[in-house]
Amino acid sequence: MNWLDEIKWDRDGLVPVIAQEAGSNDVLMFAFMNREALALTAERGEAVYWSRSRNRLWHKGEESGHIQTVHEIRTDCDNDVVLLKVTQRGYEPGIACHTGRHSCFFQRHEGGQWKSVDPVLKDPASIYK
Amino acid sequence: MNWLDEIKWDRDGLVPVIAQEAGSNDVLMFAFMNREALALTAERGEAVYWSRSRNRLWHKGEESGHIQTVHEIRTDCDNDVVLLKVTQRGYEPGIACHTGRHSCFFQRHEGGQWKSVDPVLKDPASIYK
Repeated sequence: MNWLDEIKWDRDGLVPVIAQEAGSNDVLMFAFMNREALALTAERGEAVYWSRSRNRLWHKGEESGHIQTVHEIRTDCDNDVVLLKVTQRGYEPGIACHTGRHSCFFQRHEGGQWKSVDPVLKDPASIYK
Repeated sequence: MNWLDEIKWDRDGLVPVIAQEAGSNDVLMFAFMNREALALTAERGEAVYWSRSRNRLWHKGEESGHIQTVHEIRTDCDNDVVLLKVTQRGYEPGIACHTGRHSCFFQRHEGGQWKSVDPVLKDPASIYK
């Protein structure tokens, strides 16, 4: 059986994907892949997602240069989520978020509010020219 | 504005949730919450999910005793994913997976196959009596 057939694709033909930084184990971002994106990710060793907003394949870093080298591809006990272990390229420390932050998960719940608690490492205007 | 209103609930009224172990930063599991589950999680300081298979609130550990103490609740740049920092209770080291493993993400892609690479820490038959 093909490993791609073992994934339980959702009603849109997608699977949720968590990208985790190798070494730090920081959760960098969350996105989706379709079958082709997952196949390409394994083939190239670089993360290729499915952009739901643009409705097309999205080679992470294609605009920003913030490519993700993929070291491991994992799935969970239900075969319906994918976890990538990646190195975030293009800047030191790695920037995974389009806001110029290390991780997309920079908002923390505090006293009934969401607070931005992580710094912008690079101005997004200089990332996306 | 209520922090719960800032979450972009999906068409089923749910938000995907990543549970990450405080300290190790291991990704333990992935599940969903509805608004009530997220409110209860913040209120109790223990993870309460929405079980899509059972169609009801699911206080993680209610059967297994493997409760998750929640230290942080984060959301991402799009407000459509939640990340929890938790301590996995009830066993040492923590067991988050119903298969008796530490993490649900125990299958790794190797040479075109999914391989189980992490050990079962406790027999599921003795977890769910």
